[in-house]
Amino acid sequence: MTSSERGASDLDLGLLSPGRPGGRVEAETGDGAFLQALLDAEAALTRAQARLGLAPEAAAVAVTAAARLGNFDSRAIALAGSAGGNPVIPLVGELRWAVGSEYAGSVHHGATSQDIMDTATMLVASRVRSLILAELERIAGALGTLAAAHRATPMAGRTLTQHAVPTTFGLKAAGWRALALDAHDRLSGLSLPAQLGGAAGTLAAFTTTAQSTDAVFELVEGYAEENGLDTPTLPWHVLRTPIAELGGALALAAGALGKFAADVLVLSRTEIAEVRQTDGAGGSSAMPHKANPVDAALIAAVARQVPALAGVLYGSMVAEDERPAGAWHAEWLPLREALRLVGTAASLAAHLAETLEPRPERMAENLEATRGLIVSERLVGVFDRATLTEAARAAGEREIPLAQALGERPEIRSLIEAGSLSAERLDELTDPAGYRGVAAELTDRALARTPVRPVVRRGENDV
Amino acid sequence: MTSSERGASDLDLGLLSPGRPGGRVEAETGDGAFLQALLDAEAALTRAQARLGLAPEAAAVAVTAAARLGNFDSRAIALAGSAGGNPVIPLVGELRWAVGSEYAGSVHHGATSQDIMDTATMLVASRVRSLILAELERIAGALGTLAAAHRATPMAGRTLTQHAVPTTFGLKAAGWRALALDAHDRLSGLSLPAQLGGAAGTLAAFTTTAQSTDAVFELVEGYAEENGLDTPTLPWHVLRTPIAELGGALALAAGALGKFAADVLVLSRTEIAEVRQTDGAGGSSAMPHKANPVDAALIAAVARQVPALAGVLYGSMVAEDERPAGAWHAEWLPLREALRLVGTAASLAAHLAETLEPRPERMAENLEATRGLIVSERLVGVFDRATLTEAARAAGEREIPLAQALGERPEIRSLIEAGSLSAERLDELTDPAGYRGVAAELTDRALARTPVRPVVRRGENDV
Amino acid sequence: MTSSERGASDLDLGLLSPGRPGGRVEAETGDGAFLQALLDAEAALTRAQARLGLAPEAAAVAVTAAARLGNFDSRAIALAGSAGGNPVIPLVGELRWAVGSEYAGSVHHGATSQDIMDTATMLVASRVRSLILAELERIAGALGTLAAAHRATPMAGRTLTQHAVPTTFGLKAAGWRALALDAHDRLSGLSLPAQLGGAAGTLAAFTTTAQSTDAVFELVEGYAEENGLDTPTLPWHVLRTPIAELGGALALAAGALGKFAADVLVLSRTEIAEVRQTDGAGGSSAMPHKANPVDAALIAAVARQVPALAGVLYGSMVAEDERPAGAWHAEWLPLREALRLVGTAASLAAHLAETLEPRPERMAENLEATRGLIVSERLVGVFDRATLTEAARAAGEREIPLAQALGERPEIRSLIEAGSLSAERLDELTDPAGYRGVAAELTDRALARTPVRPVVRRGENDV
Amino acid sequence: MTSSERGASDLDLGLLSPGRPGGRVEAETGDGAFLQALLDAEAALTRAQARLGLAPEAAAVAVTAAARLGNFDSRAIALAGSAGGNPVIPLVGELRWAVGSEYAGSVHHGATSQDIMDTATMLVASRVRSLILAELERIAGALGTLAAAHRATPMAGRTLTQHAVPTTFGLKAAGWRALALDAHDRLSGLSLPAQLGGAAGTLAAFTTTAQSTDAVFELVEGYAEENGLDTPTLPWHVLRTPIAELGGALALAAGALGKFAADVLVLSRTEIAEVRQTDGAGGSSAMPHKANPVDAALIAAVARQVPALAGVLYGSMVAEDERPAGAWHAEWLPLREALRLVGTAASLAAHLAETLEPRPERMAENLEATRGLIVSERLVGVFDRATLTEAARAAGEREIPLAQALGERPEIRSLIEAGSLSAERLDELTDPAGYRGVAAELTDRALARTPVRPVVRRGENDV
Repeated sequence: MTSSERGASDLDLGLLSPGRPGGRVEAETGDGAFLQALLDAEAALTRAQARLGLAPEAAAVAVTAAARLGNFDSRAIALAGSAGGNPVIPLVGELRWAVGSEYAGSVHHGATSQDIMDTATMLVASRVRSLILAELERIAGALGTLAAAHRATPMAGRTLTQHAVPTTFGLKAAGWRALALDAHDRLSGLSLPAQLGGAAGTLAAFTTTAQSTDAVFELVEGYAEENGLDTPTLPWHVLRTPIAELGGALALAAGALGKFAADVLVLSRTEIAEVRQTDGAGGSSAMPHKANPVDAALIAAVARQVPALAGVLYGSMVAEDERPAGAWHAEWLPLREALRLVGTAASLAAHLAETLEPRPERMAENLEATRGLIVSERLVGVFDRATLTEAARAAGEREIPLAQALGERPEIRSLIEAGSLSAERLDELTDPAGYRGVAAELTDRALARTPVRPVVRRGENDV
Repeated sequence: MTSSERGASDLDLGLLSPGRPGGRVEAETGDGAFLQALLDAEAALTRAQARLGLAPEAAAVAVTAAARLGNFDSRAIALAGSAGGNPVIPLVGELRWAVGSEYAGSVHHGATSQDIMDTATMLVASRVRSLILAELERIAGALGTLAAAHRATPMAGRTLTQHAVPTTFGLKAAGWRALALDAHDRLSGLSLPAQLGGAAGTLAAFTTTAQSTDAVFELVEGYAEENGLDTPTLPWHVLRTPIAELGGALALAAGALGKFAADVLVLSRTEIAEVRQTDGAGGSSAMPHKANPVDAALIAAVARQVPALAGVLYGSMVAEDERPAGAWHAEWLPLREALRLVGTAASLAAHLAETLEPRPERMAENLEATRGLIVSERLVGVFDRATLTEAARAAGEREIPLAQALGERPEIRSLIEAGSLSAERLDELTDPAGYRGVAAELTDRALARTPVRPVVRRGENDV
Repeated sequence: MTSSERGASDLDLGLLSPGRPGGRVEAETGDGAFLQALLDAEAALTRAQARLGLAPEAAAVAVTAAARLGNFDSRAIALAGSAGGNPVIPLVGELRWAVGSEYAGSVHHGATSQDIMDTATMLVASRVRSLILAELERIAGALGTLAAAHRATPMAGRTLTQHAVPTTFGLKAAGWRALALDAHDRLSGLSLPAQLGGAAGTLAAFTTTAQSTDAVFELVEGYAEENGLDTPTLPWHVLRTPIAELGGALALAAGALGKFAADVLVLSRTEIAEVRQTDGAGGSSAMPHKANPVDAALIAAVARQVPALAGVLYGSMVAEDERPAGAWHAEWLPLREALRLVGTAASLAAHLAETLEPRPERMAENLEATRGLIVSERLVGVFDRATLTEAARAAGEREIPLAQALGERPEIRSLIEAGSLSAERLDELTDPAGYRGVAAELTDRALARTPVRPVVRRGENDV
Repeated sequence: MTSSERGASDLDLGLLSPGRPGGRVEAETGDGAFLQALLDAEAALTRAQARLGLAPEAAAVAVTAAARLGNFDSRAIALAGSAGGNPVIPLVGELRWAVGSEYAGSVHHGATSQDIMDTATMLVASRVRSLILAELERIAGALGTLAAAHRATPMAGRTLTQHAVPTTFGLKAAGWRALALDAHDRLSGLSLPAQLGGAAGTLAAFTTTAQSTDAVFELVEGYAEENGLDTPTLPWHVLRTPIAELGGALALAAGALGKFAADVLVLSRTEIAEVRQTDGAGGSSAMPHKANPVDAALIAAVARQVPALAGVLYGSMVAEDERPAGAWHAEWLPLREALRLVGTAASLAAHLAETLEPRPERMAENLEATRGLIVSERLVGVFDRATLTEAARAAGEREIPLAQALGERPEIRSLIEAGSLSAERLDELTDPAGYRGVAAELTDRALARTPVRPVVRRGENDV
């Protein structure tokens, strides 16, 4: 069998998408799921028309019954879709055939391909959004637990890769959680509208059957309801806010998870080792000692890709005419990929959050790496800068604690001898754990936030 | 004078940014404006500390008085900023010097460079946002007027570059307006928070002066108020939602305006000529007959750039540690450029909307270009498809109206002779102006929407 | 069957990729093709070791025989790939099992996952490149024929959407061809190296079997030869020039084809109609008269996506350490998608070029649309500017030819009466067909260029 | 003074571009430099015409004399550029005025704005390219010295953030150098052509003065020579390969430098500390102990931005008609910014490379961090996997060297007792420094490569 004889069954097995295979997001974003969503949209249209008496009730039943993925040769539809540039054209023919001649006329009546394609895209988006929201809530839950438990656990705060001043692991985890909630609430607040406009967005073909303008608007509303999607004010064939906003929200989610992953990667470094994953760390066949932070690496990979995909979606807002030649078609793959990348990353991040083990003892060790210098900011207000600089140099060169180096300075020694400074106070001042600012209280405040759920719409077609 | 001897006075004159020079957005996004915003943030910090008794009131007065752009050698600060990687470090030194030794210690106390830089960025963003919102309201106003006036003016609806079915100019303009409002409301709803966290986001340095944890939180609140910005829940040095969301909102605005421009460019084509600009169309020295749609071209250029800039901002959410080595620095130029590109495009689009002249007579002529074929969708439900196809072919080949070609078909002729179809009805059925769907009513509905204004905050520091 | 129970067989059928299904590019970029390439790379490694006596010859035979896609459960490998973050880890286990215990030790010996994955990626890239180069040559051929035939066929030159001065269709087609050749030669000139470095790029594991340093380098060379790929100077696990350059070349190709498509879309507009596709124009079920430029629209959609994907690849050059945590993984999907998008667009563009029919009569009609104004540039040097401006205004207002309007001006009339200007000369001067510059000769020069073929390497593993 | 009253003198001082202010790249990419390049292009055009007798020699002298930046009000030209959408239109008027009425007609004769703008862009690109190439050669030189000195200096090879197997610092530096050379040679090989086509790329206006077609082509060649740029085969107003390729090459350079920076950032971490900068490390006012890797952070910031800018340039290849409405205008800012970002990063990287101090003693300490586990790959072939796994676990838990843990295993102990393994051999096998593969020899091979210089063209107008 040469490669060109192969069919489509092995085009995407998830080989290049570790973390994705077998998950629900994969199932809900595949071509099969899109095809089912196209069928769902067609059936919803006929049902909405039947509700208004614009189609026989029996047609609605027949179309709904026929509109099942298993009734169609999916690959044949994909192959036939090249001629007209989208899969809806051949699908309508097949669906009419499946419904039978009596009700074939009630299939796709008055609609244009883009009505069905856009609605199906929103159905897929809605289903995947539910999955992502659930994972983001898992993440927020697990990180919330970690943050509460470690609200005061001291660790080195790092800026521009260098130890700066202490922070706490709780505050760090609370920050990751805050980002997950930002992503959650942004996704949750999106409007996901059905699409119905007809050939050029005037709903003209519906006016040939509907009795009145009001009936046309009722049809749009009923169609949205049947799909469990929002009702649009205008047909949005070339008003692509819903797609662009979805892209933006997914990029935000990718960035939010990417920050979490970036920190886990730093903290997992062999030399730092302040966190480890209790489960699921990636092994290496060649190097038995390795425990690769695979989840974090895969999330990081997602974060590198989604902004570019969102950029394509924002750019596709520039869609000329009543339906464009290319801008619309350019949305499909980037949007699908953004949905499944973020869906995958959210699952991985939930697993990571639930299995992440902070190691306070390593944090404490690393905090001592600069022998007290990490609190130098604090000491600036206490000691003369020249004193501090000299002591810091001595501490570094002789590898002694800063407190000791300070204590050896004549000007400090005289303070101690004069009783205005005790050795204990010196130790206390240079103890990193004593200089955590309001990290714990910031953690508490951040943890008071809860996720905002999307408004539930009648008939919502969630998975 | 060789080029390398030149100073900085001519680095950016707007030469590569037609549409921008001389406008308020340019002034509010220049380095001078950023430097003033940095000074504003420093002064706000000292004032906020004075409000809580953490700094002398006289220091607040002194810092506020000193914090004026004119007191500083801006270029020297920019030059000195390279060493530490940001301009705040040298600025603090200069500001302390300007304030004088008595109150120098009350300058920048407890803050880190990023606190000031991020706050200044939000100040600039807030000021430019106000300008953009005002332009988007102008656009919505002008397009609303056009849409209302032409709610029923028929024109060709075009899909994949081909005449599809009729639409109205009003619906088209209402769509552009809807996008402008989408952009408006998105920008309007953004949270623009002040930044205050200290070296590693724990606010630790403030705890050395503040009496209590509550006082530290009050300081953050007071600082936000003094800046006229939102109060953050957490320091967001590495929780970059505000920046990423701002980038996304600007990309949405660019796309919204880009769609308007794309349509104007199509409708301005010599062969189409359905709109023209009554003022400001670009001339050409070499070709006196030309009237280039320059505003639209410049807006289109903006729409090609902003998504990429937003992508950089989304990508910069992946910011490791408590303050990152590069991700933060990578935000500055893309955000500034996105602000001024969108600000420029909004001004141009407002001018374009206010000077755009639709030409209904050209629309009517073009509607006839296919001799009635543009309503073939409507006729599909009336005549046999074979009849229609044959008539369409004849109309095309012989360049006669579709009504005439239909009337010549024997099967139609017999209908007319039988009295079940009149010639008038045939003309009516093939009249594009009679097949506008609910375009006018959609226009009315869309025009009912009004822009949502941002929540005004105490002390908002708008321009 | 709920969606989550579905397997992977319908994840990608090409539903969202019109133009791709059934083509060779699809087959060569699917997961099946990648898996086969991974197996090819493993077999090449064992054979290369056998050539140097580092593995038994029988092992090479056994591994080569076992390394056939059909011997493996592809989906199971994809599923198992999540644990370690790439599919090579489970594949090696399966391959060893398939080879049998005697020679299992000769499978993957000394290699790291990335060696195999990168090599497979280059094999896929090499195979797809051959397909793309062939399509680009078809395009150059067809466009060359069109350009030669129409080297002097006059048409309106358009700038900023307005008629500017005349050009020829031949020059336009020659420009499209030049871009196709630019893309061709850029792709053709790429280096596609094999990858072999071992765990950290030091080839250390091979030194445990090879007799000498030279033998290690010979192994790398032999491995590249067995794969039909270039020999790398250094392992390039984190020196990603080959991937980034490939991305850039694909973006160039997408842009080159996108320019062709953009022009076809303009020239296909109902009002312009200067080209049409003799075959394959997309029909519309709802609007029987439509002939959508589907090929061009789909190519335009590709051109909107690939630059963003190339951006991810350039960005992934920032790959820390000896093998990175995310940057590498982020390359796989964008590179695969860029290959198949460009491959699809190239096929579509070849079809478009071969079926594109220019319509000189429409070009001539449109040239007259401005009634001679299109040659105003030429007249600037002949007549007084004031004369010209007045005549142009009159021609526009009264809808008369510019020659007539000029002839009616008193100052011209006196020239004619004085015999220093004839009416024929006036007609000639205002004839667009007479002002084509050196368009025809530029076309001839451009057509002299021929495509540069890639250097053929021994054992090149082309499809 | 309110902000809106401010002029343009402080729009760009480099405040948001640390690393750039004061450098040659800044001077060569400012608006002043662009304006001078526009003037250079105009003067070259008149000179080229004079060479062929198409303009008076005195006109060439006059235009060349007038074409000096100091003669013009740059801001006024920028302000006036908005009307027509580019600065060339007002510049031509000003230049004609400056030249005087006698030779005004020899200014810009036959050219279109884009001819001058594109040529000026190539002049700027050529000048900046020279600067970048010189910096890349500095980088290659400094890194070559480091690589040679440390070809065998052992350090931990890290993959997915974890210690994998040893490598050498020399190999690492040789890799950075190889990337710098890749970027160098790619930039060096670019074609930077002059632009000359007239209103629609047919060179028509030149045919009104030139005696023959050959003379027109000679004019193009002479114009390119006068500019020191390549001669184009076709006018490339809408064949944007030169711009797109330049963008791609700059993205490659940014990625190349970004990899270097990413590694320096990792190796500079407080816990790793294997490199430090002997000069120029950024201080922190608040934290006296910090030595921030500022150069590397700023380079990393550049690497995050340039791919997006290159994406805009690739996307702008989709330029409709003979000159486009937006695609061209969209190139200017991204290309300029890409040039100066890469120019800045190259300077910073040269400084970094020349001041980077590797710390072999820290490398050695870190190599011991896993107590021998870093060579476990090597031991896989020597000891039973179960033995190794048990010993590794013991070494980890008890914090003892792997050699000791192995030596305590009964099966190893018996080998030692049997004399078939010595304690020395065990130490040797587990010594990381003994397992460097061919790192040193790879370094030697990589260092044999030298940079490829660009072909020097007559009259090259380098800075």
